Amino acid sequence: MPSTVKLADYLFTRLRQLGVGSIHGVPGDYNLTLLDYVEPNKIQWIGNCNELNAGYAADGYARIKGLGALITTFGVGELSAANAIAGSYAEKAPVVHIVGTPARKLQDSRALIHHTFNDGAYERFALMAEQITIAQASLRDPRTCPEMIDRIIQQCLIHSRPVYIQIPADMVSVAVAADRLESLLMIPEYIPSNDQERAVEYTLDRIYSSKQPMILVDGECKAYGITKSVQDFIKLTNWPTYTSAFAKSLINEGLPNFHGIWRGSSAADEDDRNFVQSCDLTLCFGPHLSTTNSYAGSSRPDPAITLYVKSNSVEANEQLFQDLPARDFLSLLLEKLDKSRVPHCTKPPKAKGDTQMPTLDGHAALTQADFYRKLNPLLRSGDIILAETGTPGYGAREFKLPQHTHLFKPVTWLSIGYMLPAAQGAAVAQREMHREGKWPQDPVRRQQPPRTILLIGDGSFQMTVQEISTMVRENLNILIILINNDGYTIERCIHGWNKAYNNVARWRYLQAPSLFGVAEPTQTYSIKTWEDLDNAMQEEEEAGEAGLRMWEVFMERMDAPAMLLELPGAQEAKRVAQNHG
Amino acid sequence: MPSTVKLADYLFTRLRQLGVGSIHGVPGDYNLTLLDYVEPNKIQWIGNCNELNAGYAADGYARIKGLGALITTFGVGELSAANAIAGSYAEKAPVVHIVGTPARKLQDSRALIHHTFNDGAYERFALMAEQITIAQASLRDPRTCPEMIDRIIQQCLIHSRPVYIQIPADMVSVAVAADRLESLLMIPEYIPSNDQERAVEYTLDRIYSSKQPMILVDGECKAYGITKSVQDFIKLTNWPTYTSAFAKSLINEGLPNFHGIWRGSSAADEDDRNFVQSCDLTLCFGPHLSTTNSYAGSSRPDPAITLYVKSNSVEANEQLFQDLPARDFLSLLLEKLDKSRVPHCTKPPKAKGDTQMPTLDGHAALTQADFYRKLNPLLRSGDIILAETGTPGYGAREFKLPQHTHLFKPVTWLSIGYMLPAAQGAAVAQREMHREGKWPQDPVRRQQPPRTILLIGDGSFQMTVQEISTMVRENLNILIILINNDGYTIERCIHGWNKAYNNVARWRYLQAPSLFGVAEPTQTYSIKTWEDLDNAMQEEEEAGEAGLRMWEVFMERMDAPAMLLELPGAQEAKRVAQNHG
Repeated sequence: MPSTVKLADYLFTRLRQLGVGSIHGVPGDYNLTLLDYVEPNKIQWIGNCNELNAGYAADGYARIKGLGALITTFGVGELSAANAIAGSYAEKAPVVHIVGTPARKLQDSRALIHHTFNDGAYERFALMAEQITIAQASLRDPRTCPEMIDRIIQQCLIHSRPVYIQIPADMVSVAVAADRLESLLMIPEYIPSNDQERAVEYTLDRIYSSKQPMILVDGECKAYGITKSVQDFIKLTNWPTYTSAFAKSLINEGLPNFHGIWRGSSAADEDDRNFVQSCDLTLCFGPHLSTTNSYAGSSRPDPAITLYVKSNSVEANEQLFQDLPARDFLSLLLEKLDKSRVPHCTKPPKAKGDTQMPTLDGHAALTQADFYRKLNPLLRSGDIILAETGTPGYGAREFKLPQHTHLFKPVTWLSIGYMLPAAQGAAVAQREMHREGKWPQDPVRRQQPPRTILLIGDGSFQMTVQEISTMVRENLNILIILINNDGYTIERCIHGWNKAYNNVARWRYLQAPSLFGVAEPTQTYSIKTWEDLDNAMQEEEEAGEAGLRMWEVFMERMDAPAMLLELPGAQEAKRVAQNHG
Repeated sequence: MPSTVKLADYLFTRLRQLGVGSIHGVPGDYNLTLLDYVEPNKIQWIGNCNELNAGYAADGYARIKGLGALITTFGVGELSAANAIAGSYAEKAPVVHIVGTPARKLQDSRALIHHTFNDGAYERFALMAEQITIAQASLRDPRTCPEMIDRIIQQCLIHSRPVYIQIPADMVSVAVAADRLESLLMIPEYIPSNDQERAVEYTLDRIYSSKQPMILVDGECKAYGITKSVQDFIKLTNWPTYTSAFAKSLINEGLPNFHGIWRGSSAADEDDRNFVQSCDLTLCFGPHLSTTNSYAGSSRPDPAITLYVKSNSVEANEQLFQDLPARDFLSLLLEKLDKSRVPHCTKPPKAKGDTQMPTLDGHAALTQADFYRKLNPLLRSGDIILAETGTPGYGAREFKLPQHTHLFKPVTWLSIGYMLPAAQGAAVAQREMHREGKWPQDPVRRQQPPRTILLIGDGSFQMTVQEISTMVRENLNILIILINNDGYTIERCIHGWNKAYNNVARWRYLQAPSLFGVAEPTQTYSIKTWEDLDNAMQEEEEAGEAGLRMWEVFMERMDAPAMLLELPGAQEAKRVAQNHG
């Protein structure tokens, strides 16, 4: 007989081996016995206030650490987390969603129990999960569980997308074979396909024959695990390099050939536009060409001159090279690249991304146009910065980021409220990596805990506010910068500039940390002028900080970053104002 | 050409005709233009803090008013509401879930836009909705929209379950035929089936031949619309009548033949148990026999002697009479019933449900065993009372309810956090009905706004706390009674009595009303002793109250209503304590 472990121990051992140091979730009737096994496996249990928040936190954790996990209960719990899981799917965050389900006997007898529809149909929630996860498993047979767990986690890693595991309550402590645990679970090794050599040759040929190439880095590079190789390629070629908004913070913005975000033909400045139009080759790594990540499509590279490096293929014009993982392709490409044949090329007139500090009247009210540049010196190496969908997400595109920062920004899913619990999850991952000596910390602050900064609008803040209490309970080093502009300003810009449905309730926001249990006195700042902002930044700079700080930054409800003011609602309002003026 | 209206006007006119005075939801990019039509149709828009809360609120509203509606946006919005919609499905609340979706052209071209998975697959969320709604429609053709809307709302009314309507942004203002609006939408008329006469004859025969009959009222009676007929039947027969927990508050508890909740063979007292066992006929109206609603199955009536009146059938032993709506069946039964042949029967020794005020030391700490009886005199006719899953849901079973109260209690879905937004939605419905002269108000307080009371534990409160701000914004007359027992006590009773995963963060709960914008000074009470409770009750009694009040009631974390202390976790803890004692 092989040596055995309990099923729950098997699962948590696997997750622990892959670096999962914390699991988020909420206890429920059908997962309580499963939770008994979390902490004995040296994984921290982080109980969130609700399951949507837990799902968001697990996503934030996964994006920092490379794998995250979430435990909910059958029906009520898992469905509350559905939107978070869908977001992980859309933007490729690897989250293992583990659901504690009723004992097999109850399911098989179609018992009329709670957290069901009282109709014996136990399969509904798994059917729903199929739409928002890349692979699913129901662990019902001790003989097959280890392999199923391995397969499902592997799918999570390969696709960098969420998976779904149901564990009936009576399966938690069954014995399963332990032998697989001796070898670490990994993404399966690449078997070179016929396409590989051809793809590399084709790409080299395109590179050597180009006269004016450029690089466009997009955000899926992170999911493919090629961020470092891409950066090597950028350094090696010295070609002008742009990113999408999604890819911002993946590439060292201090590189001399880094030119910031490519804003497309409609929003880019003339120099960039002229340069991009002059190119005869775009190497596009990790494309994710949703409208929100491509300036309504205008920054999508011209397919006629673009070679796309996708998760498992290389594509250009009529060429398609398949079964070619990006990591393996890039590694071979770098190996084969003859540096002497890489074309030198014209650069756009100046490298972009420099942020001039504006000169501002200290007593003047804050404006969206200047706020983000003014705030920029606050940021330092090692920070995680989250800029929520809404005005912060667009404003943060203006940041000049120090090296080794990680920016969360709106990409495609754009579920407001996500960033607050994601900040909690990301900060937990950051702390773990710091403790493991793996976090690139600001050199002068090596002894301090690393920092997470959340920039969030009032409408988003209201969605998931209670997760501040988990930040407090975990004593995470987080600065919350709340932008109070009295409602859903981004929606006003789209439609309904003055409509009541775009209002939100008026809260006394700075009381939130106290309600949620922070030690008094809470460090909170009400910021209405540039001077207020200076003072708060100064204080933050000097603080040997840890724990939660919160700023409430007041902005005009009708002010927004320039590109949002181009949207129909804002334009309509402008026309109306002019007609009345 | 027929006269036309815009599609959105058609939909909202239909809802308004059916009594929907308020719609809950959250604005989003794909529903903004739809929202333009809500208030012009004399329906109040209630913007909630997030979609789960909006779904809960719409459910609470629907359970009071008979129909509710929710508007969310594609993907992010609708998925956040999934758990609430599923709860409406499980417990039969009629909610119309309206989702604003991207314009048809975007969908058909499989455009890579935000709130999708960036893969052009637009159908995923509708597939998910199929699992948790009774009928679905996608409004894409102006010629068929009116009929589809009518059909879908009719399904919602027939089944008293949620339905799902997708409206692409470009369909909102298309012209559709208006002629159907001239006749009110109703549940289709009953066409007497062959089974009808036979069912009534069979039932009358069972009634006349019974020697010891009883009535068991369950909670689905409300969904079938037979609450009044059932009450007529109870008065007419004068038979001993019990309810399930679900049905509590549906029947006037002051009736002489009302005997409270039937707690099943395991939990009922001996008199009730002996009586129920002596019966030879149980007429069971609106059965909903989930374990949570049937004392783990022990209060399910004996099938050998039971005649069930279900939504669309009558069933007994081997008999099944189909296509027989409960309302039509009962109406005919009452018409045909020969009162002189209705058997008189033995009663249980005494009518149950009387609540003796316990004598308690004013300085003593509160106990679960006495709290609910002590609180009982607070309740008055016209109140809506919500008792959340957890200790309050079980404690509230002890209430002796005044007539014309409405009690929300845990039934089957048991999603903690539900009751707080549901209280907001129910209070809005209550206010509307009060203004329409349809709310049965306490006679001595006719001039005051009616009241909603929420009893909720700390773990549940944390899930959805932000919806207090909607209570404040709407100036609803709500008393929140928070039971602070330092964690998920009901889970401790099930498993993990002392486990950290059953802890929740410690908040300064009474600061919540202030954060969420209530006018200062907030009426809040910290209640630790019976004397504190007396004082707060006295103050509440004297107040010509309106707006929000909140009590924080401290209870031992290890205390719970008696039936929860019978659960495995609590029993295990008791054994451990005895061994150490």
